[in-house]
This record gives sequence, C-alpha cells and structure tokens, in this order.
Amino acid sequence: MKKEYCGLFGIYNHSEAARMAYFGLYAQQHRGQESAGIVTWDGSKIREQKGMGLVPDVFNERHLGKELKGNVAVGHIRYSTTGASLIRNAQPFLVRFGGMHMALAHNGNLINTLELRQELEAQGSIFQTTNDSELFMHLIARYMNGGNLEEAVAKACAKVKGAYSMLLLANNKLIAIKDPHGFRPLSLGRVGDSYVLASETCAFDLLEAEYMRSIEPGEMLVIEDKCVESHSIGEPRPKRQCIFELIYFARPDSRVFGETVYDCRKCMGKVLAREAEVSGDFVMPFPDSGVFAAVGFAHESGLPFEAAMIRNHYVGRTFIQPSQDMRDFSTRVKINPVKSMIRDKKLLIVDDSIVRGTTIRSRVKKLRELGAREIHMRVSCPPIRFPCFYGIDFSSKGELIAAYNDVDEIARFIGLDSLHYLTIEGLRNSVSNPDDFCMACFTGEYPMKPEGWAGKMCLEDEVAVSW
Amino acid sequence: MKKEYCGLFGIYNHSEAARMAYFGLYAQQHRGQESAGIVTWDGSKIREQKGMGLVPDVFNERHLGKELKGNVAVGHIRYSTTGASLIRNAQPFLVRFGGMHMALAHNGNLINTLELRQELEAQGSIFQTTNDSELFMHLIARYMNGGNLEEAVAKACAKVKGAYSMLLLANNKLIAIKDPHGFRPLSLGRVGDSYVLASETCAFDLLEAEYMRSIEPGEMLVIEDKCVESHSIGEPRPKRQCIFELIYFARPDSRVFGETVYDCRKCMGKVLAREAEVSGDFVMPFPDSGVFAAVGFAHESGLPFEAAMIRNHYVGRTFIQPSQDMRDFSTRVKINPVKSMIRDKKLLIVDDSIVRGTTIRSRVKKLRELGAREIHMRVSCPPIRFPCFYGIDFSSKGELIAAYNDVDEIARFIGLDSLHYLTIEGLRNSVSNPDDFCMACFTGEYPMKPEGWAGKMCLEDEVAVSW
Amino acid sequence: MKKEYCGLFGIYNHSEAARMAYFGLYAQQHRGQESAGIVTWDGSKIREQKGMGLVPDVFNERHLGKELKGNVAVGHIRYSTTGASLIRNAQPFLVRFGGMHMALAHNGNLINTLELRQELEAQGSIFQTTNDSELFMHLIARYMNGGNLEEAVAKACAKVKGAYSMLLLANNKLIAIKDPHGFRPLSLGRVGDSYVLASETCAFDLLEAEYMRSIEPGEMLVIEDKCVESHSIGEPRPKRQCIFELIYFARPDSRVFGETVYDCRKCMGKVLAREAEVSGDFVMPFPDSGVFAAVGFAHESGLPFEAAMIRNHYVGRTFIQPSQDMRDFSTRVKINPVKSMIRDKKLLIVDDSIVRGTTIRSRVKKLRELGAREIHMRVSCPPIRFPCFYGIDFSSKGELIAAYNDVDEIARFIGLDSLHYLTIEGLRNSVSNPDDFCMACFTGEYPMKPEGWAGKMCLEDEVAVSW
Amino acid sequence: MKKEYCGLFGIYNHSEAARMAYFGLYAQQHRGQESAGIVTWDGSKIREQKGMGLVPDVFNERHLGKELKGNVAVGHIRYSTTGASLIRNAQPFLVRFGGMHMALAHNGNLINTLELRQELEAQGSIFQTTNDSELFMHLIARYMNGGNLEEAVAKACAKVKGAYSMLLLANNKLIAIKDPHGFRPLSLGRVGDSYVLASETCAFDLLEAEYMRSIEPGEMLVIEDKCVESHSIGEPRPKRQCIFELIYFARPDSRVFGETVYDCRKCMGKVLAREAEVSGDFVMPFPDSGVFAAVGFAHESGLPFEAAMIRNHYVGRTFIQPSQDMRDFSTRVKINPVKSMIRDKKLLIVDDSIVRGTTIRSRVKKLRELGAREIHMRVSCPPIRFPCFYGIDFSSKGELIAAYNDVDEIARFIGLDSLHYLTIEGLRNSVSNPDDFCMACFTGEYPMKPEGWAGKMCLEDEVAVSW
Repeated sequence: MKKEYCGLFGIYNHSEAARMAYFGLYAQQHRGQESAGIVTWDGSKIREQKGMGLVPDVFNERHLGKELKGNVAVGHIRYSTTGASLIRNAQPFLVRFGGMHMALAHNGNLINTLELRQELEAQGSIFQTTNDSELFMHLIARYMNGGNLEEAVAKACAKVKGAYSMLLLANNKLIAIKDPHGFRPLSLGRVGDSYVLASETCAFDLLEAEYMRSIEPGEMLVIEDKCVESHSIGEPRPKRQCIFELIYFARPDSRVFGETVYDCRKCMGKVLAREAEVSGDFVMPFPDSGVFAAVGFAHESGLPFEAAMIRNHYVGRTFIQPSQDMRDFSTRVKINPVKSMIRDKKLLIVDDSIVRGTTIRSRVKKLRELGAREIHMRVSCPPIRFPCFYGIDFSSKGELIAAYNDVDEIARFIGLDSLHYLTIEGLRNSVSNPDDFCMACFTGEYPMKPEGWAGKMCLEDEVAVSW
Repeated sequence: MKKEYCGLFGIYNHSEAARMAYFGLYAQQHRGQESAGIVTWDGSKIREQKGMGLVPDVFNERHLGKELKGNVAVGHIRYSTTGASLIRNAQPFLVRFGGMHMALAHNGNLINTLELRQELEAQGSIFQTTNDSELFMHLIARYMNGGNLEEAVAKACAKVKGAYSMLLLANNKLIAIKDPHGFRPLSLGRVGDSYVLASETCAFDLLEAEYMRSIEPGEMLVIEDKCVESHSIGEPRPKRQCIFELIYFARPDSRVFGETVYDCRKCMGKVLAREAEVSGDFVMPFPDSGVFAAVGFAHESGLPFEAAMIRNHYVGRTFIQPSQDMRDFSTRVKINPVKSMIRDKKLLIVDDSIVRGTTIRSRVKKLRELGAREIHMRVSCPPIRFPCFYGIDFSSKGELIAAYNDVDEIARFIGLDSLHYLTIEGLRNSVSNPDDFCMACFTGEYPMKPEGWAGKMCLEDEVAVSW
Repeated sequence: MKKEYCGLFGIYNHSEAARMAYFGLYAQQHRGQESAGIVTWDGSKIREQKGMGLVPDVFNERHLGKELKGNVAVGHIRYSTTGASLIRNAQPFLVRFGGMHMALAHNGNLINTLELRQELEAQGSIFQTTNDSELFMHLIARYMNGGNLEEAVAKACAKVKGAYSMLLLANNKLIAIKDPHGFRPLSLGRVGDSYVLASETCAFDLLEAEYMRSIEPGEMLVIEDKCVESHSIGEPRPKRQCIFELIYFARPDSRVFGETVYDCRKCMGKVLAREAEVSGDFVMPFPDSGVFAAVGFAHESGLPFEAAMIRNHYVGRTFIQPSQDMRDFSTRVKINPVKSMIRDKKLLIVDDSIVRGTTIRSRVKKLRELGAREIHMRVSCPPIRFPCFYGIDFSSKGELIAAYNDVDEIARFIGLDSLHYLTIEGLRNSVSNPDDFCMACFTGEYPMKPEGWAGKMCLEDEVAVSW
Repeated sequence: MKKEYCGLFGIYNHSEAARMAYFGLYAQQHRGQESAGIVTWDGSKIREQKGMGLVPDVFNERHLGKELKGNVAVGHIRYSTTGASLIRNAQPFLVRFGGMHMALAHNGNLINTLELRQELEAQGSIFQTTNDSELFMHLIARYMNGGNLEEAVAKACAKVKGAYSMLLLANNKLIAIKDPHGFRPLSLGRVGDSYVLASETCAFDLLEAEYMRSIEPGEMLVIEDKCVESHSIGEPRPKRQCIFELIYFARPDSRVFGETVYDCRKCMGKVLAREAEVSGDFVMPFPDSGVFAAVGFAHESGLPFEAAMIRNHYVGRTFIQPSQDMRDFSTRVKINPVKSMIRDKKLLIVDDSIVRGTTIRSRVKKLRELGAREIHMRVSCPPIRFPCFYGIDFSSKGELIAAYNDVDEIARFIGLDSLHYLTIEGLRNSVSNPDDFCMACFTGEYPMKPEGWAGKMCLEDEVAVSW
C-alpha cells in the first residue's frame, strides 16, 4: 500500500507566482522532503521545474526569476513511504490532452486505484507512474471529450474513492478540490489581489497572506480572473478530517480544518493531565513532537516544565554509521539528555504518540542508565491500533505496537513505571467539532475501506521495486 | 520540427545485461550526448535508470552491479536538437498497461505525429511528453486490447509514418523493428549465448560480439528464449537507408546497413579526386570528420597527406567565453593550424560536408592570415540542399548554404580559390547498392513527406518551450 | 581582527580513531560549520582529510573506513567571521619539520600575531595562511631545533599572547594545551582503553565516553602509550574562562569549565526573575537560545511557560531572496508566532543576549502587528558593551547596541514596554566560581589587550581579501 | 621519486589577465589534468583560485570576471605521477613574507630537495607540502632578508639543482626563470601591450599573441612596467633541452625550444623510413601519438597512409570496469581497428615511443586476431632505457621494457614480425641543434644526477602516502 505525505500550494494572479510558490512550499517542507515541483502558467504556455530533494535543492534563482514565467502557479512537495522515490513520481503532474496542458498536485491516497487502472488499461490507457494523479488525469481526459472541464473533474471525483485534496491548473483556471469526507487539509487565503491555497496556513504567514477559510469537504473551488466560484462535487458525506494532522503532522503554528494546531495540542496535554494524574519532579517532552502537549500538561498539573533532552540541530539525512559496538547510536545522535537533570529524579515524560515504540524504548533505557529513579510516560493520543488508508503512514499494521499489545505490555516493553494514553473521549474534548474527525487509526471505524483489503497489502509489492 | 540523434543497444540472455548495455551505449556515445537510459528485465520485474549527460555521468557501479537486475536490457542515448532536453524525454520509455511493463527505445523521426496525437486525444489519451515513443506506446496499447503483442506492434507500425528503428522490451521478449524504408541502422550480433542489437557495430567490437547481419527494412525480429523469429511488418517498400550515416554520422570503424563506413568514406575521397583533379602541395583534412575521405583522396591523387590542423582533445561542452575582441575564438579553440605547414603553400582541403559554411569560412580565413598561397576545397558529398525529416538535423532549410547558393557563391562566401563537391553519381559509385539509399537531402526526392509540410514547421513552436 | 569559532576533538589509542573523531566533531557541529578536518597517525604515517562545509559533507565512508588509518586522531571544525573562509585555512594544520610530521588544531585567538609574524619573517619564515596555527608551528620549529618537543611547545606558548586551547599530534604523542588564563574549554574523557579530548562533553556523550575533568588553564597534557603526563606551561595567571560559553555558545547538554551549561542557564533565568519581577500572561523564549533561561524564569516567577514561537527546522544556509516588498522576511522565515497565543496578551519574553538588536526588533514588531498588548523582555546576561579578542565574535564594537546606548534607549529601539538585563552580580551568582571567568565583554576589563589596539583593527583589512 | 608534468602561463599588463590565463592554461591542458590555479595581482592585492580537475572544472565566470582582479596573472596546470594529488600541492604557490605576497609556478623537478629540506628544517623551517615550489620559496625568503628580490632569486637558483622553468609574481614584477641547462620549455610572446609567457606556443595561438623567442637556459627575465630586463643566473652550462618534449609531450602545433614540434616529428618519421626500410600494404599510426611520424614515414617510403585505428573521443577518466572475462578491454575501449583494413594485410605501424610495451602488445594481439598477415613496427625514437629526473615520468627504471631487453626480445614480447627504433644519430638528424638536447633517457648520460641515487628511489616512499 503506497502512502504519501504531501504539501500543496497554489497562487492565482501574482506577478511573482513562482517565487511565492517557492516560499509557500518552503514553509511546508515538513510535509514532504523527497521531491518538489512548481508549474506555472503565463496565459499561453505552461512551464515546470521538478526535482528530488528539499525545496532549496530543486529551485534556483534562474528558475524563479526567469524560467517559470506566469502569474498562476501550483506547487507540490512529497514524501513517499514506498521505495518508489523517483523523479518520475514527483508532482505537479503535467499532461497534454484535448489541445491543452494541465497540471495536477495531489495530497492524499485513493483506495480503488487497482480497479480503476484495470478498467482504464482495458480501454487502452497506458501508465507511466504509480501516482494517483496520473490515474485522475486519465479519468478527466476520458470524461472530458471536448466538453466542460469542471464537469469532467466532478465525474472523475465521483469515480475515485479515498482521500484527496488537489490543486488543478488548467488554462486560465486554478481549481481546488477536497474529497467529500475532507480527509486532508486545504485552506484559502488572500494577499493583495492574489488568491493563495495551501495545505497549512504557516505558508500564508510567511507570505503575509490573510487566511480566509478552509476548503469544505466535497467542495470544488474554481478561480478564474477575479472570480472564485464554489461548486459541490457529488453527494455530501460526513466530514472525516484527519485527527492526526492536529496531533502530530501539521506545524503547531498552522491552522488546519479551521483549528489552531498549537491550541489543540496544548489542550490534549491538559486533558491528559486531568485523566492520568501523577506526581513527579518535573514534566519533560521528547523533543520536538511532545513539546506542546507537555506545556499543557505542566500548566494543568502545576508541575515544572523542563527541556531536559537536547536536540542536535545538525542531524541530517545522509549519515555515516558508527562502529558495531555503539548501541542505540541513532537515538543518541538526535537527542542527548542533560545528565544532571536526570539522576535520582522521578521523570514525567509527555510525547504525542507511540507508533512502533522502539525509539522511545531506547531513549528510556538511556535515561535509566543515567540514574532516573522513576520514569512515567503520558501520551497525548489514544493507542494507534489500525493502519491509515488516507495518507498517513504508520507502516503496516503488524508494526503498530498497540495493535497487538495492551497498555501494560507496552509499558513493560518500553521499560516504564507507568504509561497512560489520552482516551478517545479526552481527544474528542480537545477539538471543537469532534464528530467531524476521522479517528479510524484508534477505533478501526473506517469511513471507507480499500478494495480487497483483508489485512494484507497487494499493490505495493508488485510495483514498488520496478519504478 | 523535432529532430533527434539517437543510439540503440539491446541484449538478450546475458548474466550482466546492464553492464553490457552500458558499454554498448558507451561505444556509441557519438550518436547522442544529452541523455542516456537503460531498462532491464529479470523475468518478473522491470527496472530503469535514466539521466541527463554522457553515459558515464548517468550510471555508476551501483546501478550496473546491483540495481539493474536481469538478463535482458535495452539502452538508449539521445541528442535532441530542440530545446526540450528534459529528463522527461529521456528513453527507453517505460509504461505499464494490460498488466505488464514495456520499455521502448526509438531512433528516428515520425512525420504524422500531430495527426495521430489529435486522434488519440479525441479518444481520451493523455500525453506527458513529445516523444515519438509515447505516441507509439499509445497505439500499441489501443491495438492490443488483451490480444497479441506482435500483432499490436505491427498494427501500430502500419499507422505511423516516418523513420524508426526501435527496440521493445516486453515481458520475456526483446523485439527489434525497422521501418519499411529502413532509414536508420540497426544490426544483430551474438556473444556467447546472448543476442545483441545495436545501431552501430562498434558496440559489438567493444563487447567482442560477432556481427551477424543488418535488420532488414520492414522487419520485426522477436527474440524469446533461445529463439529468434523474423516477421514482416506491412507492405514492402523501397529501401531508403540514410546515406548520411555513411558520409558523416556513424563511426568509421562501424558497419551500418551492411557497409563498412571507413571503406565508403575513403572511396568517396578517391572518386572525388578523380572527379575534381587539382594540384597542390599536399592534401589535408579538417579534423576529424574529413580524415578518411582525405586519406582516399591522397591515395588516388598521389599528393602527400598532412595532418596540418591540430585538434584540442580537451575541448568540452561547458565553456567560458573570451573577451569581446577575440574574433573567431570558437573556431580557434577547437583546432589550430601548424603555422610552418601553411605559409606560402597551395592547400588542398578535404572535408566531408558543408552545412552552414560559417565554421569552415572562419577556418579558411585563419589559414589566409597564416599566409596560405591558395586554398582549394573538395567536399566528399554533394551539396546539402534539403532538410531531413527522418532523424538527421541540418537545422531548418533556410540555414543550409547550398539551398539558395550555387557552388561559386559558396566558394566566394567561404573564401576559396576553388570548391568542388562530390557528384550524386560519384556518391552512388562509392556504395554497394546505391538504389537502396535515401539521398533526399541532396535531391529533394523524399520517400515520404511530413504532414502539412510546406517549407515551414508547425509542431515544434507549440510545444518546445513548455516541456 | 580575525575571529574564529572552533571545536576540537582528539582521541588516543582507538582502533577506529577517525570514525570516533568524525562523531566527536559531529556532536560539536554548532561550534563551526564552515570547514572540518581530521588527521590520523598510524605509528609511521600521518594522513589528513579536510574540506569546506559541514562534517558530513567533508567525510565519507571511504575516508573513515579506509584512508584515515591509525589509532590516534585529531579533528577540528571551524567557523570564520572574516572573509577568509578558504580551504587553505581549514585545520588541523599539518606540517613537516625536523624529520617528522605534526598536526595542530587550535581554538581561540592570539593577540600578538602581527608582531610575531614580523619577527619571524625577518628571520626568513614564509607564511601560507593567516592561521594562528601556522604561526604557532613556526615558533615550535624555531625553538625545537633538534631538541625536546614539550620544551619547544612550552617556549612557543610563552611567546604567544591570547586565547588558545590546542591539540597537537606529533609522532606517537597527543598533546593538549590550554593557555594560562584558560579562555576556551577543553575536557578530558575516557572510553574503553582510549583517551578522548573535546571542547564540549556532548561529544563524550555521543561516544559513550566518560568525562574525567577539564584541562586546567596553563596545563599541557601529554598522552603517550598508556601514560598521561601533566605539565605546566609558564607562569600561572588568574583563570579567565569565557562566560559566554555558558550563556550562549556551548550546547546546553555539555559541561564546559566543569559546569553544566543547562543548569547555569536555568539559574540565570531564575536570578533574572528575582532581579526584575514582572507580571504577564506567560513567559516565552525566543527559540532556541532563550529556552533554558525562560524555563528557569518560569519556575521562579510561577508564570506559565509557553513555546509560542515556532522554529522552521528546514531553514538552511543557501536561500533564495523574496521579492522586494516582503518586509522582515528573514525574521519570519526562521520563526513564526502562534497567532492565537499573542493577541491581547501581555508577553514576557526571555532571551539570552542582545548583540545588535535588529533581529529582536523585527520579531517584536511582528508580535505587535499580531495584537500583543504589552511586550516585556528579560535578558539573561548583562549588556554586551565591549568586543572580545579571545575568540567570540560580536562583530566590531560599533555594532554592539549596548556599547553606545543605555537600557532605555535599547528598549525604545526594539519597541519594548520594559527591558531588563541580568546584572553582573546576578550573573556571578549563577556560576560556581565567579572569579574564574572573563567578563570583559560586559565590563571592558580585559585580562590582556591585543597589540596596538585602540578601537580599530589592523591586520584583517590587509590580508582578508587576498586569502 | 616525485615526478610532475606541468604547464605554465603568465601575462603582464592586460585588463583581463585572469581570463587570458584561463585560456592560456586551457590550450596547454595536455601538460597536466590534475589541478589548475591562477594568481592575479592588481597593484595592491594578490588573489588566487586553485582546484583539482581540468581547467574548466576549476574556474567559473565569477572567478574570471569578478574575483581574480588585476592585470598581472600567473597560471599553472599540473599532473602528478605520485599519489600526492592533493589540492595542497596545486600551484601557483602563494606565500607571504617580508611584508609582501609572492606566487610561484614551477615546471620541472629538483634533484637535491632532500638535502636542502634537511638544511632548512635544521634552521627552523616548516614544510606544508612536498612541492619544489615551497622549497624554492623558503630559499628566496632566507636569502632576501630585506634585500633585493632578483638577487635572492639568483642565490636560490644557485643553491638548487635540477630542472626548473618558473614564473614568479612578486609585487609589480613578473619574473621568468629557466635553469642553466634549460630542461623545460618556456617562451615569451606579445599581444597588444601585454607580455605573455607559456610553456608552449599553442597558448599564444589561441590568444592571438605573437611569438617572440624562447627563454634562454640560465636566463632570468624581469618584466616590470613596460620594461623587460634579461639577467643571467649563475655560471653558464651546456644546454640540455628535453628531447622528449619534441618526440611526444608537446602539442604538434607548438614551438618549444624554438623548434616546431610537427616538423620535428615528421622528420623523425622520414629518417626512420630511411633507416629501416620495409615493404607493407600501408603505413598506419597508433593514434594519436604516432600520427605525425607516420605521415613523415609515409611520405619518405611512398607507402600509402591509413588511419585504420579509430579513437573513441568520449573516453574519459572515470570508468566503470567490465566484467572479468573481457580481456584487453582497456585497450579496446580507447581505439578500435577497422576490421576490413586489417585482414590479410602486411601492416606497418609507426608509433612515437615504447615505454612498458604492454598496451602496444595488447593492440598487436588484437590485430592478429583480426587476421593481419604480418605486423611490423617502427618507433620514432631510440629505446628508452633510463629514468628521467627532470620532469618526464617513465615510471621507475624497472618498468622500462628497453632497460633490460634488447630489440629482439621486445619484438617477441609484443608479438611483432619486425621492430626498429630510430637511432640516436637519426634522432639527432631530426632536430636543428642536436648538441643542445638532453638524451639521457636513451643514453644514460645525465647532465646531473640526483642526490644519493643508486638505482633506487628514496623520498617518494616516505612522503607520498601521507600527503
């Protein structure tokens, strides 16, 4: 099962559209570090620049200042969890059909791709990638047939199942679409006379754009000239916004789904403090993900907050391996405890989630070696027990420690004196409209299940290696 | 009008197929320096590596020794004369349809692409490149429809017009195809238990493979297991092999179309010496292209051969510009005359062709400055007066000096005391089967003309900039 | 005036000395990001690898696993504040004289180099760099003259003035030296049978080495075979350890000068809270430098701690500029406030220092725009009013805002409702042995002044451009 | 024994001195492909750019157009035959002493460096490289001592033994020096108001500079302002110009030592044809080195010239290895015979020299496999039996096939039907002033022998690996 993290950015009617897109992606770099791309439209020609690597690796001044002409731009950043990290799969996805060029940038994951592919291949379609975007483009092309673009897009949306927030650039239009459940975030803003769209509002802040609103589930927004038209695609369905964006994935200074991430995380920490009271010398986060829940926990519990584990800011991606006898090296190289803070202390650690538990286990072991007297952990989300089919990668279900272990077993595995997770109820209390969120990773109640899913994955094995 | 120089290589049933393909491309590097690609098949998975640059820039030991698994491989090198030199257009072209992966490497130029594209787009096809290969793949996919691959390929061949030598890797088959006129070269060889295919036999020599034969015009060769089957595609048409491969493009140590290039070039020089007798102090080539005709000319005329212009072997592609006042710098940096050989001499220069005439003019001017008494030039092909639509780029017709100038005018432009071109008849006498060759660039007698051609080009302008 | 930040690492008697040095430098990367180098000794040959860039950019597996043989290694990382950031100046500095090779890695800044250079040049010495290390090597060579290495080093130390912590690898010896005032840190540790030396103990933690002690001011430690000998160089002088290592420069998880940096910083925050009481909605740091003092301040004041400004973890060094009209862009791209936390709040910001004040000013301005009601700042060190000659760069005196402005003027410049600095007395109360520290940047009481210093710098202008 | 090939270029009084130096080095790239450097002087500051690789790899437009200011420049290219190919050893060598900066570029090889080094080290000198240039600079510095530069240089020249052509840039002077025997070439030219100096005149041709004369052995030329002064250094000694520059090393379009290389090589071929008459189907060179002697041989013998071995112009330096079973691959990849020319022919091959004989042997074997009936070889220089100490690398004596084998044994080893070398007398007849040349590699009559030489080398082993 292919999974992708992605970030989107679009801008309409700006004299430096490519440059704005560059910064809009740059601010969202945490959403995908593997490839980046920008496509621009100048009223008659479409241009693209895509590449592997971080945003500053892919674009240079020549691209932004000279080559990527036009006042409409769509950008995309991507991190793939499959091996298929080829330039071939970088987005936006650019095609030509019906005499025009179109570019599509997509965040999310479709769940009926195999079935749709087979149907299209039977009709003579050829595929060059494993991107959902390519599939989507094939559908639009089939449905369009000389007709109306918006209608063709709506028909294609009706055909696919799954999570998709998308930006589509076609001739003079910039179209933003969110699937009927609204799994992945996408917001609209404004700067000067330009409209901007982004997965997270931290992109707006960097560009000094003003936040307007979140795109609605099932909404298709068509921007053309000075006009923004809102259409509805297909039947309305219950909102199922990804709660994990709030718990972990989005930047704390962003708004997603209309919520401020920072506030939600702090609130989760506060609720957690009430749910699982504990004494201790101080509250400390595992950096950086646990910081905001730990702040909330400290406020609520009255315990002092300490930043007792220090992050190495220079840890990059390519890395020389240590010699054999350095145990837990990869843990140690990223964060290092302040020894004097740990010895003989009763530690209360707050983290935002536990996926496999192995990294946390090795950190806890290190704290024991440094003389911690007791180690208690509080986690600001419920146990993650089910895989996500809509774009968040917790690896396959077999690796989720909470899938087959109860809380006591997990505490024992990690080496904790006590462990408490935030309850589903507590989590619901930490957001404004709890019914609007997908919590399938905690509950297993999927809004829709992927084709042929029975606990094992099929498509990935077949295509991952070859492309 | 898009034009591409390309080189092909294929190998079937070799334990180090990727490595052999690497060297097979390496030996043919003169056929394309812009991008390179290899696709391999290991019986169940297909793998590719493509990139911009020379063959050694694109592949490393890891690719050849580890990643590109399989005992079947197809390789491609490309030089594009349009601006569209993107990785997107690098070949072999890899697609998935009908449940299998196929890779196509193509040398030549189709002439009815616009028409075919429009037809396909009307049926819902989407295009991601301007490659002829993509078009070909769309056609195969349409015709296949669950049926027989060879038949679908044959139908696709019947649909396209133009020049194409191709290698197609599909499941366990390696298929070689040459268009009915047989414009571009492709030969079959054998090394150990493996079959090899290459545009030029210099690739066989490097691999110590044995030359078997040239693929016939209109032939489809299907290699599967130990079996090689020859099919015929469509109606037979008159052979129209590209004479310019023999005159200039192929390596002199290669065989193409069954002819030894070296022998042909020397023979052209000999015939030229008979056609246009002249006295002189010595015969000298413009390096390196004129060397072999000059050798033949010297033999026939009895005049001594001199290598009086020295080539700088380190001239590469990226180059810093000199200051403004260095005239004719780009000429001088590539070759430098031996001054002592030039002063007061009657020079007889042999070159293989004149396209625009500007470089030759600047070289002749330099020789005058060094004190040459007389400068006579003999050219080992007839005047190039017409553009090529089948894969050789002489730029557009307007830039061919012989298109609008007679021999005297050209001699005057270049600054020569006399100039003679090889006659058509002389050229025909220099090859074994003169009726089998396309000489349209000299005669304007095209075997087939491109769609809507009326002296101006249409497709290029539209798509070159955007992709 | 040339200034350098540097980090040192040495290891004696380890089978993977180069690899350990790599990680020892890696952990100290914050001490210098411009160049890195490692020299190894295998008992008969000396080998080096140096380069520009971060530690992972300079070394690869081949260097560490194969080329840098030997069980003794010295490593160095450097950041130069002059323009002379050439590979030529990268360290360790490797020379040959008296029939042996020696390598020197140096942290600090000598203040009588001009005078010494002139003296040496008059005797026929030639200089290839502007490194203090080269100067030191010339002196050692002059004094050695076939004699004893340790004596020659001691004589050289007696001749130079200024700050220097050094590691010298010569034949089978690894020698660690600290100048008599002990300006810059250097500590000794042990892992297995190996001795390790590092500027900061975070390097020991990564290697799981045990901290033994800080090298004493005026101490020369000679490691040879299993033996560690301590010598004293020259007359004892008062300890003058750099207080700024504790305030800002060192990593919070390190020990330097025997003090735990984290504890000192938190203590400064606590003292500051007592010195400059203030109410407010919460305490927030400017990330990341103010975090630890802010934590202490929050504990002492009882006000809640908030991490209300979010750092972009992907901000790198090379960066495309925004268009003209994005004001304060460079501030905004690094950190972004959480808007919902700021509006209508009375903010209490803690930072560790103010140098020029311009960045802080632009951050404060942003907070005002977001609707902060009041903004109060507390700084965990006294006003920096004087330049440092011993290796910390505050730029030239003219740019230190506190050099010519009093606290009210600074508050007005930055746009604060109130501003308080930690007092000298408060700072002294935050460390164990306040008399052992150099606080010249606050007081102007220099332990020693540079040659000819009268408020203007001389050497830099002359040599910076050329090398 | 360290050996270096090098090329020099200098220019005085040119507004684009750095750019001219770039092209002056570019034209001489065959003299050294390992590192390149340019130093410029603008009347008050000296600037340098050096790097590993070919000239276009080391310099970019920014260096030439902006950074390397000044109207005097000295450039150097280098190829080292030792392993010490570090940037550290790249030239020009730039130092500071006596209050000024000096840059030295050196071609040749000193033979008493060990002795001089020891003497200097005993006086306290430190060495950072194994360059002869550094040694030379130390000597100049010692002798100068506040006095006259020219005198100090002359004294330094009197102290060193060996081969050296040098360019020294010091303040406003550009000084050219050739050792008393005049081993290595260096010529003076003029372009506009500028003086130029180069190892080979092909550099002048590219810059359209006019050749003036060869620097004399034992001459020191001082260029300052509009003035060129010629001094003599030390006692006159017999001219001993390197004959191998004419035979092989210099470009055929260059003049060196006042001789035109092309004419000399052709003459060697002619004399060889007279000395060792033989019949054959044709004369062919081994490309490219044998071409010019082969042309002369063909003229004199009346046999036809054929270019029957084709060189691959794309063979670069980094290269993937073939699989194990491809014998003689490295030979085959560089040149490939034209098969049709070889079969059943009596070949007469002309080459310029035989060093180890192994490459030629593998080429001859290939020709036998292709069906050559007889293979005769003529070599345009005498057998190379002795190593060179003055800057030409034939590897150590043990590897020179002619050192321990007579002509019959060599012919047998290579697999030839006959083999003849040019005689010493024949070689002397091919140049204008035969007494002015060093022919020690053929005769063993060294103008001066290196310190402690007794058939084995000493310095190299000690230092090569470490630096």
